Amino acid sequence: MRADDLILVSVDDHVVEPPDVFAQHLAPEWQSRAPRVAHKADGSDVWLFNGEQIVNVGLNAVVGRPPEEYGMEPTSFAQMRRGCWDVHERIRDMNANGVLASMCFPSFPGLCGALFLRQADKELARVMLQAYNDWHVDEWCGAYPGRFIPLALPPLWDPKLLADEVRRLARKGCHAISFSEAPQELGLPSLHDPHWDPFWTACSDEGTVICVHIGSGSGMKFTSMEAPVDVMITVTPIYSVTFAADLLWSRVLKQFPRIRFALSEGGIGWIPYFLERADYVHRHHHTWTHQDFAGKLPSEVWREHVVTCFIDDAVGLRNRHALGLETITWECDYPHSDTTWPNSPEALARSVAGIADGEVNAITHENALRIFRLDAFRHRPREKCTAAALRAEAVGVDLAPKSQLGGKPPVAGEGRPVTTQDILSQLASVYATVPE
Amino acid sequence: MRADDLILVSVDDHVVEPPDVFAQHLAPEWQSRAPRVAHKADGSDVWLFNGEQIVNVGLNAVVGRPPEEYGMEPTSFAQMRRGCWDVHERIRDMNANGVLASMCFPSFPGLCGALFLRQADKELARVMLQAYNDWHVDEWCGAYPGRFIPLALPPLWDPKLLADEVRRLARKGCHAISFSEAPQELGLPSLHDPHWDPFWTACSDEGTVICVHIGSGSGMKFTSMEAPVDVMITVTPIYSVTFAADLLWSRVLKQFPRIRFALSEGGIGWIPYFLERADYVHRHHHTWTHQDFAGKLPSEVWREHVVTCFIDDAVGLRNRHALGLETITWECDYPHSDTTWPNSPEALARSVAGIADGEVNAITHENALRIFRLDAFRHRPREKCTAAALRAEAVGVDLAPKSQLGGKPPVAGEGRPVTTQDILSQLASVYATVPE
Repeated sequence: MRADDLILVSVDDHVVEPPDVFAQHLAPEWQSRAPRVAHKADGSDVWLFNGEQIVNVGLNAVVGRPPEEYGMEPTSFAQMRRGCWDVHERIRDMNANGVLASMCFPSFPGLCGALFLRQADKELARVMLQAYNDWHVDEWCGAYPGRFIPLALPPLWDPKLLADEVRRLARKGCHAISFSEAPQELGLPSLHDPHWDPFWTACSDEGTVICVHIGSGSGMKFTSMEAPVDVMITVTPIYSVTFAADLLWSRVLKQFPRIRFALSEGGIGWIPYFLERADYVHRHHHTWTHQDFAGKLPSEVWREHVVTCFIDDAVGLRNRHALGLETITWECDYPHSDTTWPNSPEALARSVAGIADGEVNAITHENALRIFRLDAFRHRPREKCTAAALRAEAVGVDLAPKSQLGGKPPVAGEGRPVTTQDILSQLASVYATVPE
Repeated sequence: MRADDLILVSVDDHVVEPPDVFAQHLAPEWQSRAPRVAHKADGSDVWLFNGEQIVNVGLNAVVGRPPEEYGMEPTSFAQMRRGCWDVHERIRDMNANGVLASMCFPSFPGLCGALFLRQADKELARVMLQAYNDWHVDEWCGAYPGRFIPLALPPLWDPKLLADEVRRLARKGCHAISFSEAPQELGLPSLHDPHWDPFWTACSDEGTVICVHIGSGSGMKFTSMEAPVDVMITVTPIYSVTFAADLLWSRVLKQFPRIRFALSEGGIGWIPYFLERADYVHRHHHTWTHQDFAGKLPSEVWREHVVTCFIDDAVGLRNRHALGLETITWECDYPHSDTTWPNSPEALARSVAGIADGEVNAITHENALRIFRLDAFRHRPREKCTAAALRAEAVGVDLAPKSQLGGKPPVAGEGRPVTTQDILSQLASVYATVPE
């Protein structure tokens, strides 16, 4: 299929929250306790909440910046492309990249809302999390009906409240919720614990997909302080194999037959191997480990329950039938450093060359729209949804890389390879100063 | 290719050390301090060394046992198939499985000899490790020339001694040495540290392949105590992606152009994805991370330096050219629970169906013989090396599964799924009693 004819729905992008997230959806008595943005003398902007500073990380908002200037430094809104946090500019950037619809993970609360989880005052946490969800669904996604797939943040500390939030948001049309790939690393019971059953039940009942993003356990994993940072960047997606295995062998998929999980930013190229491995382990070991998939193979049960996505993954696409064509979706990862913006249609067209149009359409948008229940074509006729049609609407969007916006290099000059230690030192710098 | 016509060289099997390892290669004054086998009242055999008990783990010696009776319990020699530890019976079992040659990793010293590393008395450690290596090369491999690829254990605590051991063993015809996938988890510098340069130099000079087995860091990784044990079994091979990434982005491959590493038991199906991911990361990030592959792609440099292997991996074989055909070898994993013994030729023939004979030969034996420098056909004419020819020599080898040899189930009866906690409890049981 030609790049122009692709219809693109991205199931993993990120919103950098604008300063007014908590303006519309909090009762007046809570306003003074809401997270707020502060500008610091070092030039960065941070969120302040209950005595804690939370930084916007460079690499998480580098779209439109020359790669030479990528880094992990704390950034300010002024250093970001406006589409990171302004929904109107986001839509223009989506149009310029030919992207019809987008699901946006949060930034400052953490990928599964760990900021709210770690508050001692759980009533404060609940109020702010629900205000965040209302902002996300009503303001961010609500501004352009049909252009966003809403994604809820979970109140992880209380399974009953979590189930209630799933049901509350489903009534508002939200059928996706973020969850941790390793709740045990956040001090919570693992997914094997019946503790979570009210949550699984609510998601099954409401058709809400549980989205598990890479890095949503206790964060990025590093091998050593002197390892090149490229090690962490390379392995982070494939590390979702840990959650994948935990999920596949758990009681959850067996006892909640309608439940559905999405591996967000996990890539797809390793999954055919993983499924073959799981089936091999089942054949070799089930008689002593007592696993019972009711006559099915683990790989079959997987395909009934798990949605995958990829940015640019030719190997995975070549092996799409071993994965399960009906389980594959696509992501753009705007505005993170791995994004293919603003050339996603061209990058994707190269990867799907030779694949039949019907299969390409399943992968690029049909699976995502069906699984996440977005009726995009009700809002916009299908022929206006192609990459070329959307790009035709992107009048005056400046796509030229913007230099000198930020990007303090972790290592000065041409320098030696950047290490774990270098980027952790950059990140730590935010805590060295207090807001004005 | 038909199963009968395969020529099989396995680059990852395991020897369960017989009690007489230290009988022939120690000076008399060291004999009393050598590791020795003791029989315990609970029926298990353990090695005793310098006040420490080391157990033979059930799953690591279950070949020939019905899978229903697999487990992680401590075992005795009497509970194992004799081919685990008796080289004459091992050869008969190799013949019965049509396997021409085998590289055997150690059992009680740990996959990379961590037992010796953790001794405070480094002179004791050196003497015992060298005696072990001499036994392995001269007795185990020496008993049947052309049938084993010798593999050295490394004195990890001293890079100079390590380099000397590489050179000493190369003179004895040994061109493979085990190493840790995460030396930093063993309290040593990471592979990024110039600390290891004398070792890399010696291996480059001698053409010695550095073999990095799964689980050779700080051991198996578990997600939680209540996770089914199948989670750990499934993910352990693919976790070698961590070492793979550490190695690929390190200075080692760039600065030691002739060095070669083997990913032992890592599987191959995930590697085409990994290489594509590495190239993507390089394209997107090298201008700020300062990685420099001298005009090559990371995947190209990988193929020059890294050898992979698989047990049964149809996905990997389908994508063999994305991996690099010249880098792929095969393994049997005898006597561990994942082995395909005694049906390896049939299992492999299914996976290579449709692949040209020349490619099959590269994968099944030519790559391994070339890379590990074993001139097997000097000892035995090629036509006598096929699976069918070797099996014809295996007169009277009883292949029937042997029940009731050991295999205390981790969970009684039909039971619930076996968890991490269950198998760790089994393992811990060995420390509850002292030897007779």
